[in-house]
Amino acid sequence: MNLNRPMLLENQTAEKLYQKVRQLPILDYHCHLSPKELLENQPFESLCSLWLSRDHYKWRLMRMAGISERCITGNASPEEKLKCYAEALAGAPGNPLFLWSQMELAKYFETQETFLPETCDRIREQTDRLLKEHPLTPQELLLRSKVEYVATTDSPDSNLKEHFLLQKTFSIPVTPTFRTDSLFGMTDPTFPLRIRKIGAHIRTLEELEGAIESKLDFFVSAGCRFTDLGVEDFPDGPAEKKEAKTIFLQAMNGQNMTARDENCYRGYLYRFLAKKYRERNLVMQWHIGPKRNANPELFDRLGPDCGGDCIDTPIKIHSVLSLLAAIQNDGGLPKTILYCLDPALLVPLAAAGASFCGVSIGAAWWFSDHKHGIRQVLQTVAEQGQLAAFPGMLTDSRSFLSYVRHDYFRRILCTLLGEWVESGEFPSGAPTEKVARKLCYENMKNIIGGNIL
Amino acid sequence: MNLNRPMLLENQTAEKLYQKVRQLPILDYHCHLSPKELLENQPFESLCSLWLSRDHYKWRLMRMAGISERCITGNASPEEKLKCYAEALAGAPGNPLFLWSQMELAKYFETQETFLPETCDRIREQTDRLLKEHPLTPQELLLRSKVEYVATTDSPDSNLKEHFLLQKTFSIPVTPTFRTDSLFGMTDPTFPLRIRKIGAHIRTLEELEGAIESKLDFFVSAGCRFTDLGVEDFPDGPAEKKEAKTIFLQAMNGQNMTARDENCYRGYLYRFLAKKYRERNLVMQWHIGPKRNANPELFDRLGPDCGGDCIDTPIKIHSVLSLLAAIQNDGGLPKTILYCLDPALLVPLAAAGASFCGVSIGAAWWFSDHKHGIRQVLQTVAEQGQLAAFPGMLTDSRSFLSYVRHDYFRRILCTLLGEWVESGEFPSGAPTEKVARKLCYENMKNIIGGNIL
Amino acid sequence: MNLNRPMLLENQTAEKLYQKVRQLPILDYHCHLSPKELLENQPFESLCSLWLSRDHYKWRLMRMAGISERCITGNASPEEKLKCYAEALAGAPGNPLFLWSQMELAKYFETQETFLPETCDRIREQTDRLLKEHPLTPQELLLRSKVEYVATTDSPDSNLKEHFLLQKTFSIPVTPTFRTDSLFGMTDPTFPLRIRKIGAHIRTLEELEGAIESKLDFFVSAGCRFTDLGVEDFPDGPAEKKEAKTIFLQAMNGQNMTARDENCYRGYLYRFLAKKYRERNLVMQWHIGPKRNANPELFDRLGPDCGGDCIDTPIKIHSVLSLLAAIQNDGGLPKTILYCLDPALLVPLAAAGASFCGVSIGAAWWFSDHKHGIRQVLQTVAEQGQLAAFPGMLTDSRSFLSYVRHDYFRRILCTLLGEWVESGEFPSGAPTEKVARKLCYENMKNIIGGNIL
Repeated sequence: MNLNRPMLLENQTAEKLYQKVRQLPILDYHCHLSPKELLENQPFESLCSLWLSRDHYKWRLMRMAGISERCITGNASPEEKLKCYAEALAGAPGNPLFLWSQMELAKYFETQETFLPETCDRIREQTDRLLKEHPLTPQELLLRSKVEYVATTDSPDSNLKEHFLLQKTFSIPVTPTFRTDSLFGMTDPTFPLRIRKIGAHIRTLEELEGAIESKLDFFVSAGCRFTDLGVEDFPDGPAEKKEAKTIFLQAMNGQNMTARDENCYRGYLYRFLAKKYRERNLVMQWHIGPKRNANPELFDRLGPDCGGDCIDTPIKIHSVLSLLAAIQNDGGLPKTILYCLDPALLVPLAAAGASFCGVSIGAAWWFSDHKHGIRQVLQTVAEQGQLAAFPGMLTDSRSFLSYVRHDYFRRILCTLLGEWVESGEFPSGAPTEKVARKLCYENMKNIIGGNIL
Repeated sequence: MNLNRPMLLENQTAEKLYQKVRQLPILDYHCHLSPKELLENQPFESLCSLWLSRDHYKWRLMRMAGISERCITGNASPEEKLKCYAEALAGAPGNPLFLWSQMELAKYFETQETFLPETCDRIREQTDRLLKEHPLTPQELLLRSKVEYVATTDSPDSNLKEHFLLQKTFSIPVTPTFRTDSLFGMTDPTFPLRIRKIGAHIRTLEELEGAIESKLDFFVSAGCRFTDLGVEDFPDGPAEKKEAKTIFLQAMNGQNMTARDENCYRGYLYRFLAKKYRERNLVMQWHIGPKRNANPELFDRLGPDCGGDCIDTPIKIHSVLSLLAAIQNDGGLPKTILYCLDPALLVPLAAAGASFCGVSIGAAWWFSDHKHGIRQVLQTVAEQGQLAAFPGMLTDSRSFLSYVRHDYFRRILCTLLGEWVESGEFPSGAPTEKVARKLCYENMKNIIGGNIL
Repeated sequence: MNLNRPMLLENQTAEKLYQKVRQLPILDYHCHLSPKELLENQPFESLCSLWLSRDHYKWRLMRMAGISERCITGNASPEEKLKCYAEALAGAPGNPLFLWSQMELAKYFETQETFLPETCDRIREQTDRLLKEHPLTPQELLLRSKVEYVATTDSPDSNLKEHFLLQKTFSIPVTPTFRTDSLFGMTDPTFPLRIRKIGAHIRTLEELEGAIESKLDFFVSAGCRFTDLGVEDFPDGPAEKKEAKTIFLQAMNGQNMTARDENCYRGYLYRFLAKKYRERNLVMQWHIGPKRNANPELFDRLGPDCGGDCIDTPIKIHSVLSLLAAIQNDGGLPKTILYCLDPALLVPLAAAGASFCGVSIGAAWWFSDHKHGIRQVLQTVAEQGQLAAFPGMLTDSRSFLSYVRHDYFRRILCTLLGEWVESGEFPSGAPTEKVARKLCYENMKNIIGGNIL
């Protein structure tokens, strides 16, 4: 693939606009890169390990192509696995993995050919040879991608050792994100164990609160600017602290807890977290609507993050609204980004966010992270409000090659803006380039702030 | 902006078709214009008062642009407020306010420039000068817009004084709409007060029914053809009158009522209203899915209609269906128009309506009132049935300048029809112009009827 | 209409691609054709009887055009009925019936004119004359349409007499589909009667299970490869057999059953059926989300399948997921096809299916069976996974003329693929034709299998 071609740039204005933004640096404020791998900085050995050692997007696509598990997560040879992946791609027009894969080869290996079953072996040999001749490390990949900032995703119990070491040894700031998923799910018997990981002494809700505040301060000392939560469901309403205390105590005592208990606990703790984020000027991110590990057989065999996740429905907007209102009433909302997984929820969620100051819709995510989904998010944000305030693109990826997704996003953004310019809906006098620059770089730079960048 | 340019007319057929419909008169059968202002007919003093004195769409956009409340609803100068609005527009490609604002300037002030921060002062000075030289009044604006009919939105307790006076003094019929929102919401302590506004004596459900019938007859005597209701939720099922009587009595006695009580009361009163509408040949409009005043802080500071509204989810289609079936069974459905706020509900709602005679989907509304939303409604109505029966465009606005939205709609409609003609999906022999004329004017003329027009 | 024109073929690649697939045979693996009519093979007498004697899609469109029931299902003359249908079409740009009707005339009668009120009489006379000169029978229509396989939709109590006779006398295999709708709905008093139709002795759940297995084996002996169910709702969770047994016994005893009982019974029987399908290598089809007979007045007058059906909402994805997981755990999922009625459910359902092996999203269906709906399904399947694994188009029709819908589908598919080729998103080296052939024919040929084809 030739990245200088106007691929995805569907009008002349888009082609011109793209030249203005394509070289802007990348602020990857939400990803799942491993700080340990970044620190260890081991060179990658092969295209197969780069692509297929852990990417559950690719595994999922391969399963849908009918490829046997042996060639996906099993003990087939790298050659065989890559060939199978090429076959999966050959049946996947319209899937973002098709273009991402080609763009990754073009950007990092200057491959001009399309990766398909008939070119697969040749491309693999070239790529693997290149990797031998010019070892490519995680840090090298970030530098070559013009990454200026990385926020990884971290459990509150993380010791952030790698982050501190990276900050001493690597030129790009790599900061942690306070991801609180492990603080929820009290109907699961592992709950008390998970809680005690962030403080062996924790027995009461107050003790949990104290531990959370300490951990937050610790994360902030490592440069943390972002928090995150995968929201499977919203509480029906804000809960009383008194009730939450009792419930928490029972849960920590190992009692069997109900969905109602969990709901009440969430109703309390979501608000507590938001308050503490605001006090520390941290960004609150909610990733709304995933249903994880939906296939128990796959989960039992391969664990989490193996391709068995999907989207839950329905989310009740009035639950989102009453939570936002309660947080606002507690002293104000932190800067908040709502990531919407179910496209049917996108317009109502955008309208809900638009009723509160400082609440944004985030970039298209996971199952929506394709050309059409990215357009849909940009268009909805534009229709429901102020496109120029959109926080911008991220990778949300476990792969060091995923920075091509920013190029993908920039092309799609330029096409959309170009359409409005050429149709007269946003006339040529209007500040189109300024809007594009904001969405590609400047808005997030302002959010991250000068201390770090 | 030059309104003679083919803006939004995206194919040649559209350009030709538009010439056939652009000059058709406007029937604004649903709006929120103030009959008092229309009657008083005070000239507007400035662009700022025309645009920013009460338009919560604009306020909301400005908040999303990060503009301080002082420059939105506070005491900043008109110059400053307009400059801030220009800044908000400059970041709002794809938002309908961008085009509406330019179209309003072009139509009513012949402004050719685009309103943006750098042109804002010049345009404001020109506009304000024009307003001084040639005073522009509400009535003048309606006449210049070729409006032929207006239906305002009125509380059942309104004395309709202004409507009667306008009908004696103004050439365009301005008629009331019977909007029943204030008859619901019995979990709110203001309920008995609101009910007593339409009859100080009301204590029982029968007394309420009698008062409603009197008010309806009174509205009809003022030329009322339309009724309306903002439907936040549908009853789970039709309720027994006996139960509704008891509940109503309790509510009027000031007891604390539950959501279940409200649900039952709605289940009864929705049916009663529909029956009375049908007896009087009135159109029943349901605006489905809003969640009003979602931001309590904003509401406490500025009251309702200030930009804190959004969309609630989910609405259960089987609740809509069982209500329509019950009304049909009570003696037949009045002519009914369903306005859908949540785009995800649009197809199911269109399919539900299509199972009953005389039930239409209404124009794209509020958060969907943009190019894409208008197309989506037209396309869904077409796919699910008979586009030629679509009741047509309205303004739903508080602003006397909003009649450009009809031009906006007509361009979008012509583009869509033109696409079908040029692709051969609706061949050149088919009555495209006839369909366009029906949607722009004739269908609603037939609904309003000859007595009035 | 001239079917050689590039109608719906919106780019050059599409035109070329279409030439490669337009002549492929048709595998109609899901339809509602009457095996009795196919067997009796009576020539059609008139266009009116071909089009309007039973097609509730057309009836519904006519009602929405305000046409009186006399001219739809009443005793108006064929001339009058066809004229009314022409009027309904003239107001229906964007409705798939418009194109389907023109395509049917072009394909089966070589009509070049567009069927509209002004051409209606002439076309009717030509068509009726042709039908007299060259009698056209159901079997003839299938042969001329290049149909290679038909799966009708049949109640478990069917004796399949016509299928067996057809298999002896007709060259195209006509096989039954095991459609289990009549086994559900225990809140309806007809439940015990319906159950006893498949076995007069049935009193216990075990007896029902035995009868189902016998019937399944009988269907398989008639070449059955597919099963089907119209799923109005999913069980909240998998049910215990013990509870299901008690509930079933009560229902067969004529007791009043609740929605909760039905839910539990479904929770059990869905799983049982899936297990038995898998044991026999049958495809499990779920048609998700219909709400049938929503207009009781219409139902009382005309019975089922008269145009009073619509879409129910919301379906909870976690109910779908827990059922799929339970079936997988019972010994594995049969090949499963999920048909989505509510477009808002499409992406979540596609993501849910993609978490399980062998679960596909099916073709756009009923209220989504139009250009935009077909594109939406193809695009969603592509974005969420492996377009090349899509099972392909079907007719889902009661009409012997509906095979033009395959041509309609193929054109839309070629346009979509062509867009990706021309934009570089699926470069010219990629196997576009192969993907197209799979979706038009080969995938379903593989599913049906060599024994039959």
